[in-house]
Amino acid sequence: MQDRTHAAAATPGETVTVAGWAHEIRDLGGIAFLIVRDRTGKIQIKFEKDAMDDELVEAGTDLTRESVVAVTGEVEEEERAPTGVEIVPESVEVIAPAEPELPLDPSEKVGAELPTRLDNRTLDLRREEAKAIFEIRAEVLRAAREAFRDLECTEINTPKIVATGTEGGTELFPITYFGQEAFMNQSPQLFKQLMVGSGLERVFEVGPIFRAEEHNTPRHLNEATSIDFESAFIDHEEAMDACEQVVRAAYEGVAANCTDQLDTLGYDDFSVPEEAFPRLTYEEAIERINATGELDEQLVWGDDLPTEGEKALGSDVGGHYFVTDWPSEIKPFYIKDHDDGELSTGFDMMAPNMELVSGGQREHRHDHLVEGFEQQGLDPEAFEYYTKMFKYGMPPHAGWAIGAERLVMTMLDLPNIREAVLFPRDRQRLSP
Amino acid sequence: MQDRTHAAAATPGETVTVAGWAHEIRDLGGIAFLIVRDRTGKIQIKFEKDAMDDELVEAGTDLTRESVVAVTGEVEEEERAPTGVEIVPESVEVIAPAEPELPLDPSEKVGAELPTRLDNRTLDLRREEAKAIFEIRAEVLRAAREAFRDLECTEINTPKIVATGTEGGTELFPITYFGQEAFMNQSPQLFKQLMVGSGLERVFEVGPIFRAEEHNTPRHLNEATSIDFESAFIDHEEAMDACEQVVRAAYEGVAANCTDQLDTLGYDDFSVPEEAFPRLTYEEAIERINATGELDEQLVWGDDLPTEGEKALGSDVGGHYFVTDWPSEIKPFYIKDHDDGELSTGFDMMAPNMELVSGGQREHRHDHLVEGFEQQGLDPEAFEYYTKMFKYGMPPHAGWAIGAERLVMTMLDLPNIREAVLFPRDRQRLSP
Repeated sequence: MQDRTHAAAATPGETVTVAGWAHEIRDLGGIAFLIVRDRTGKIQIKFEKDAMDDELVEAGTDLTRESVVAVTGEVEEEERAPTGVEIVPESVEVIAPAEPELPLDPSEKVGAELPTRLDNRTLDLRREEAKAIFEIRAEVLRAAREAFRDLECTEINTPKIVATGTEGGTELFPITYFGQEAFMNQSPQLFKQLMVGSGLERVFEVGPIFRAEEHNTPRHLNEATSIDFESAFIDHEEAMDACEQVVRAAYEGVAANCTDQLDTLGYDDFSVPEEAFPRLTYEEAIERINATGELDEQLVWGDDLPTEGEKALGSDVGGHYFVTDWPSEIKPFYIKDHDDGELSTGFDMMAPNMELVSGGQREHRHDHLVEGFEQQGLDPEAFEYYTKMFKYGMPPHAGWAIGAERLVMTMLDLPNIREAVLFPRDRQRLSP
Repeated sequence: MQDRTHAAAATPGETVTVAGWAHEIRDLGGIAFLIVRDRTGKIQIKFEKDAMDDELVEAGTDLTRESVVAVTGEVEEEERAPTGVEIVPESVEVIAPAEPELPLDPSEKVGAELPTRLDNRTLDLRREEAKAIFEIRAEVLRAAREAFRDLECTEINTPKIVATGTEGGTELFPITYFGQEAFMNQSPQLFKQLMVGSGLERVFEVGPIFRAEEHNTPRHLNEATSIDFESAFIDHEEAMDACEQVVRAAYEGVAANCTDQLDTLGYDDFSVPEEAFPRLTYEEAIERINATGELDEQLVWGDDLPTEGEKALGSDVGGHYFVTDWPSEIKPFYIKDHDDGELSTGFDMMAPNMELVSGGQREHRHDHLVEGFEQQGLDPEAFEYYTKMFKYGMPPHAGWAIGAERLVMTMLDLPNIREAVLFPRDRQRLSP
């Protein structure tokens, strides 16, 4: 519809055609109002029954809500209208009538229960609040990619069908691939490392990852969007600098370009993290968690940080922070240890109550890497396509991955990660 | 390495540390040269044996090619050096020695055979030519996304694990999903349609698609990157306008931002398509193909266009073009027919010897859509998550999909689509 005018652009004095959904119909007797909603907002259509053709009035008021309509008429100023203007219609066309019973009602501020909303995402995303989250999500990805280009990264796309998983055969979805066993990739880890050893040196990828974990929690997904960074010739400290830069850029993008969406969601105090994110060592982290007194049992060296501990520390720190210098045995084998062998260069970034980023400097020495596979109980032969490239001049490198859904979830303080993904995949949910 | 200087930025008079790969070592007796290559280019390191410490000379010349090194020294002007400058080294550190036998030689202009290159992408992408293709690919995606934002699209990510394929059970890779049968999605088609019926109205996605087709040709992949567009309230003509805009933006981005890469690849005549892409009807297309006399047998109404016919027509037209108004029975059921029912609103865009884009206006009427499923021999029940949303006010809409690899392939006239994807997946190739 090339002659369509968006609701928000309707200017008094002009004759326009707006097209959208019948959001609300109010019949006050001699006068009736139809509210048409489109992507940009809503606009009131006024039907003065005595002054108008019966057919026209009927077309515009004898409608089911959520029907798709096109209305042509003159825009007039009207103080009492919600947007200060209304349309006096000349014609109303019902393009796609809606059934009278809707599985959920887009005109209600408070939506239905989450499963109903997820089953009916089309209707759910006619609600301003749900739509705002996904507009913010799109801005997060845009701003992150721009930050990666500022960091001189080349965008890559790595395969999602793979012969072996990053960390072996657990937590992988098996595929039948022309009679061969294959898997859906759980992380671009190995492929992005292969690319930093190439002439590209510094890369990023935004793409799906697949994890067959049996978790069913408000913060886990079986299919997620991973934002991956990897660079040659940097260490874990510089990787953390890059991470901070990308996360800050995402917040800045949203603050600058999503003011309407933030208003819709009621964030009047949305703020971009301004300070550098504190970098706590693992040792400091367990000390501070213990000092909060929130845990029944004190943590000791070598313990992983329990969810309760992360929450206590998050409240204590009050914003994004890194945890560094983990015990080597907690971190995956492809992460490089510090020279003492006890501590790892791996780091996590917390936001602040939930792990948002995992990264580190990588093991670039061929012999150490092959040893790592063996210690992990993996067959280095199965990963030869990867390890052999470490024999031909693999530079020191570091990187990290952010879960896009967790970034949006923590940014907007959403109660469930499924609020940040259009069509979530979990153990119960495979459709739509 | 925060104090690292890139080869291309080394300025005479400064003391710098460059880090990269030992590209070439030339020993001329009293003098020897090491060429170090990094992401930005190459730089010569000069070793004057009599004037330098033996250890330093040995470190810089008794090296295997492709070893990773860091060299610190003063940059001097030197007319005879390939870049007009060279480094007089103070120290050379071998960071990661390479084995002497390389599976392929990054310093050779002409690479190895394609399978060897694909098995060793890390080394292959140390070649300027291979690297240039993927830098151009990244720019194509960046420019396309910017064009989508100019078109006021919201970026979406739709699931890759699905319960049913877009066009039924053929050509799908099956997955085991927590004991249930599932598939890898062959297209975001149904999901992007669900989103244009939401408040987003106009969306794009760049993501992987998976097709279990048994083709093994230079222009098919079993995993590819699809660039998808879909918009409410537009028809197929406006969808073609948007397609032209995005494709042109990709060419413009490459022309503006990849001049070095185009030079490397020897494209001195790279040009952005300036004219509007001609829109030929299917009927005109078969007439013109028949008129070329290139086919043994004349095409008749209802024939699909054979590859030879596409090639003949492509040479005849000489650039990008659309083919519109196909016989309805050739196009998928979710594409809307013109009112006569004989002709489809579906279109293809050719570039010019290969199909690059497929699109059309979609069937938005619930009853027609359900009929379409039945005529296709598909069970509408299995697609109820999709069809039911068409009962609640689905606006007219149209869209298309471009294969990112085909866009790069046709733009750069690459002989094989595998040149445009880092780690191709085909019937023979599942690793790396």
